[in-house]
Amino acid sequence: MSKRNLYLSNIPVEEALRRFQDALGSQLGAKTESIEVVHCLDRITGEAIYARCNSPLYNCAAMDGIAVISACTRGAGEASPLTLEEGADFVVVDTGDPVRPPYDAVIMAEDLQEAQGGIIIRAAAAPWQHVRPVGEDIVQGEMVLPGGHKIRPIDIGVLLSGGVTRIEVRARPTVAIIPTGTEIIEPGEEMREGSIIESNSRMLEALVRHGGGEPTRFSTVPDEYETLKGVLRKASERFDMVLMIAGTSAGREDFTAPLLRELGEVIVHGVAMKPGKPVILAVADSKPIIGVPGYPVSAYLAYENFGAPVLMALSGFLREDVPVVQATLTRKLVSSLKHREYVRVKVGKVGGRFIATPLARGAGAAMSLVRADGFCLIEQETEGVESGETVNVLLSRGLDGLGHTVVSIGSHDLILDVLVDLMPQLFPGVALSSTHVGSMGGLLALKNGEAHIAPFHLLDEETGEYNSPTLRKLFSGQKMALIKGVGRVQGIMVRQGNPEGISGLQDLTRCNYINRQRGAGTRLLLDYKLGEMGINPLEITGYGREAATHMAVAAAVRDGGADAGLGIRSAAQAMGLDFIPVGEEEYDFAAPAEALELPHIRTFIEALRSPQFLSKLEELGGYTERQCGEVILIDG
Amino acid sequence: MSKRNLYLSNIPVEEALRRFQDALGSQLGAKTESIEVVHCLDRITGEAIYARCNSPLYNCAAMDGIAVISACTRGAGEASPLTLEEGADFVVVDTGDPVRPPYDAVIMAEDLQEAQGGIIIRAAAAPWQHVRPVGEDIVQGEMVLPGGHKIRPIDIGVLLSGGVTRIEVRARPTVAIIPTGTEIIEPGEEMREGSIIESNSRMLEALVRHGGGEPTRFSTVPDEYETLKGVLRKASERFDMVLMIAGTSAGREDFTAPLLRELGEVIVHGVAMKPGKPVILAVADSKPIIGVPGYPVSAYLAYENFGAPVLMALSGFLREDVPVVQATLTRKLVSSLKHREYVRVKVGKVGGRFIATPLARGAGAAMSLVRADGFCLIEQETEGVESGETVNVLLSRGLDGLGHTVVSIGSHDLILDVLVDLMPQLFPGVALSSTHVGSMGGLLALKNGEAHIAPFHLLDEETGEYNSPTLRKLFSGQKMALIKGVGRVQGIMVRQGNPEGISGLQDLTRCNYINRQRGAGTRLLLDYKLGEMGINPLEITGYGREAATHMAVAAAVRDGGADAGLGIRSAAQAMGLDFIPVGEEEYDFAAPAEALELPHIRTFIEALRSPQFLSKLEELGGYTERQCGEVILIDG
Repeated sequence: MSKRNLYLSNIPVEEALRRFQDALGSQLGAKTESIEVVHCLDRITGEAIYARCNSPLYNCAAMDGIAVISACTRGAGEASPLTLEEGADFVVVDTGDPVRPPYDAVIMAEDLQEAQGGIIIRAAAAPWQHVRPVGEDIVQGEMVLPGGHKIRPIDIGVLLSGGVTRIEVRARPTVAIIPTGTEIIEPGEEMREGSIIESNSRMLEALVRHGGGEPTRFSTVPDEYETLKGVLRKASERFDMVLMIAGTSAGREDFTAPLLRELGEVIVHGVAMKPGKPVILAVADSKPIIGVPGYPVSAYLAYENFGAPVLMALSGFLREDVPVVQATLTRKLVSSLKHREYVRVKVGKVGGRFIATPLARGAGAAMSLVRADGFCLIEQETEGVESGETVNVLLSRGLDGLGHTVVSIGSHDLILDVLVDLMPQLFPGVALSSTHVGSMGGLLALKNGEAHIAPFHLLDEETGEYNSPTLRKLFSGQKMALIKGVGRVQGIMVRQGNPEGISGLQDLTRCNYINRQRGAGTRLLLDYKLGEMGINPLEITGYGREAATHMAVAAAVRDGGADAGLGIRSAAQAMGLDFIPVGEEEYDFAAPAEALELPHIRTFIEALRSPQFLSKLEELGGYTERQCGEVILIDG
Repeated sequence: MSKRNLYLSNIPVEEALRRFQDALGSQLGAKTESIEVVHCLDRITGEAIYARCNSPLYNCAAMDGIAVISACTRGAGEASPLTLEEGADFVVVDTGDPVRPPYDAVIMAEDLQEAQGGIIIRAAAAPWQHVRPVGEDIVQGEMVLPGGHKIRPIDIGVLLSGGVTRIEVRARPTVAIIPTGTEIIEPGEEMREGSIIESNSRMLEALVRHGGGEPTRFSTVPDEYETLKGVLRKASERFDMVLMIAGTSAGREDFTAPLLRELGEVIVHGVAMKPGKPVILAVADSKPIIGVPGYPVSAYLAYENFGAPVLMALSGFLREDVPVVQATLTRKLVSSLKHREYVRVKVGKVGGRFIATPLARGAGAAMSLVRADGFCLIEQETEGVESGETVNVLLSRGLDGLGHTVVSIGSHDLILDVLVDLMPQLFPGVALSSTHVGSMGGLLALKNGEAHIAPFHLLDEETGEYNSPTLRKLFSGQKMALIKGVGRVQGIMVRQGNPEGISGLQDLTRCNYINRQRGAGTRLLLDYKLGEMGINPLEITGYGREAATHMAVAAAVRDGGADAGLGIRSAAQAMGLDFIPVGEEEYDFAAPAEALELPHIRTFIEALRSPQFLSKLEELGGYTERQCGEVILIDG
């Protein structure tokens, strides 16, 4: 085994950025270029811009009407109308027409009366009335825009009116984005075991564009020291900034750090953040070079914390304000004292307060970034945050939308995805936010006022009945609503052709099983059925291995990671698996009865009852629906 | 004189939009197109998008280390180390490498100890530890993005990782933008009296781009009915939406409304809004056609109120939240009962509250849109708002920046433009907001806590001394700071060569004068000097004609609108005017003494003392500076 550089430094984020910026120093200066005003939308002015002519260019009529000599209208009044003669006493003008001497005032069309041989006025005109004087809007020589200003649509109009046709703007910094790795394939290429689809470079490309840079994406470079060196040398010579993806850690083929030490200076290798620790901040050819870790969430956070501020210094873009809200955390978060952790959270507004529910925390959990409404930062030197505590959340979306979002926490089913897509179509501006923590987790969230609705499917062991008995027991003393969802068949999912010959739950003891997490209705169903059959769960290999959704279980079975798992028919169908039914269950939604009249819940119920939803159920298959959207009141 | 359609309708904004949308009906449906994911940044998904493969594609190592068979590591501990043999008991893996059967766990590199013939471990590995199961991040078939979603950088990464390479997105609506008018010239063309530089189409082009549309700008069409008709017919056939600029009002050559009545249906002509009243909302070829008034502020408001919502329905873009703040109005606003008025305001945060100062209100005042921080809406059926009342301001900029802005209200000088440009360069994130209401207006704003500083130049008639005596009188009982600015020469500005032969203030009685507004230090200086000389102001023609800045006076003189005006030497220099000195005055800044330690005031004083500022003063010319940035405490 070759030597590995196991121990990276652990420098706090702000300190790392400061060292990087200090090392770059005056390299972060601004380049400018001259461009046409008609192409300058969203560019940053490189210097203050002054008007080159007046607007209006001349004294002109502010209204449609006639231009008159004010002195000649003196004495006109209701009782003493005055008749003016065209060409002598007045000329007809439309808005914007010049008002030339001797004319010095405009009377608007509405105040005129046509008459034989002229026009009758019944009021005198004050000098300069309804005349826009030269330069009224823009005066030649006045500053129109300061330097460092991002150009908006209205600025373009005013620059042109002020006679400016070319301006000096900040040049777009060029950024080389270099994916590396021998195992990397391009999107769309055939996938083999061991393949990783290259996606980070495309995400970085987009982030650079949003930050005012001009990205150039290189082809993926294999993990060969000399090849990498050639590419990096060329990139650092020709570009203003380089992002080199992967190879930043301590694996056998992590060449980025040694390479940067050879070609330039490594300022920081290892930052006290998670994900994103193995980021490399370096300088070569006086250019900022960032070694971006390969895990997508690490790549994102490394770029946002170090790439974005450096790019902004180069591009002149200003970072937009991140709205911060105080939210109640729904689950305990334990974190190491060693680093600041960026936990992705879903945020909802329930009963007037903001609620933050943590999502998957791994560096590889890119979907957590897609699903997240923001980040909850657990600072270094902090062991974590208790459930129910208030945390600051840096939002990644507008605050307004959160108020129009139905918060669903509980068991997962594909119909939730359908509803997430459908709700804004049916009710523009309304969204459904769905977090998957299992049936019991959802009901507890509901009890704590952390969700508007909880999707669940829980069998009552005493009565053998679904949902109502559990709701009654858990919410004793409370009036609850059971909103009927769908009937669905649970069963054992096995690979096509059922190679292990599984015919029922009794066969699970002789195969490699994959289970659902504690509190999941599917797991409770398994436990209930095993109990009936007298099977000890510990006899089942893999009983302790947990997946969080039906689809995750189905994927594990299809790819051979497990032989069997309990789940719903639609998941088996989606993955092309065989399915051995075990029983039908009811998948419903719980909500407090007093919430039924809230707009949130009403739109949700309407969506459940909509023909669009029912036809989508048909399409998915595997569901029965008898009372979709029906409400049963339950006295807990 | 030809017939004019003087009387437009006066329909409230929301009602007009509703009628327009109703008339368009299903025309506002969504078109989609298929594009590559790598080009989909900021596009809107046309439908929900589901993952086409799992990510990871296979079970893989989550850490650098070795893949082991968990069962074979049982019993390993601190006291009972176990030696594993490469190839048999383990294989070396880097992060992302596949973990294939029989291996089912990874031990990370940090926990390994190299030894003769293998590797020593001191803890057992749990099954599946440090293994990322297939589909852990993204499960094939799960929804990645709902329909109607604006694609962000992270979404692109996840789509690619989920095996998606092409997606259906909302097509960009095509928008024809047609400038009209015989008097219109292109930017950069030679200007004649009567020319209007065409700028609205370029502003609209940029607004359409920001709203997700694809603008096509037509060449300017002259005011000829048949020519206009041909162009409009072609545009309504080929584009999803048409914006026709100018000719919407009641002038002799306002053909847009009759034309649209011939080619389609005019839904609304005339909305109860100001500026923007003569907007036309029409439908031709089932397409939305908007007759956009020609005044820039009217064009902007007509587009924002009617064009933007219709474009968004077509493009799928969602309007971003407009932050609204409650602000204290600094000046009384009188408005008609007949319409809703959109008053542009500068907003600042002074002493913890937001302050809104109205800007120029004319429909032609495009600079007011550039300078504005937002709009204060005076609703229909409201006569106006008193000074000191609280109003809602729809901000056009981020809330955060307002907290870092030094608010200056008072007399205008070119050095304020210089400071507006310089402050953010010297102190990134800090801005100077400057509103020009004259010296007295500024001091009153300071007294009312509406500004941080007030630039002023006021001669005390009793002592003949500048600034300190006035400050002492106006702020009696208060401790004030006089921050020294510049010395500047005031004088009479006349056209080059002094054609009227003016040698001093006594000659003003025989020429056409242009004055400054009441409360301006320059006007008070004139009055003081005239008093000394025994000249009655009413003997001066144009004494009652007011301009708001030195530059506006200089522009009027240069262009012949007036023969003479009082102002500062730098304004005369900027406009190429001759200058007859009348006296030197002191242009300083007032602030409450207790505010001197506030960061706002400190940065301002530092900017005044900076070498960059002093060298800019040198460049401008016409100033003397002896104590720039010096602070004199005054006991009022």
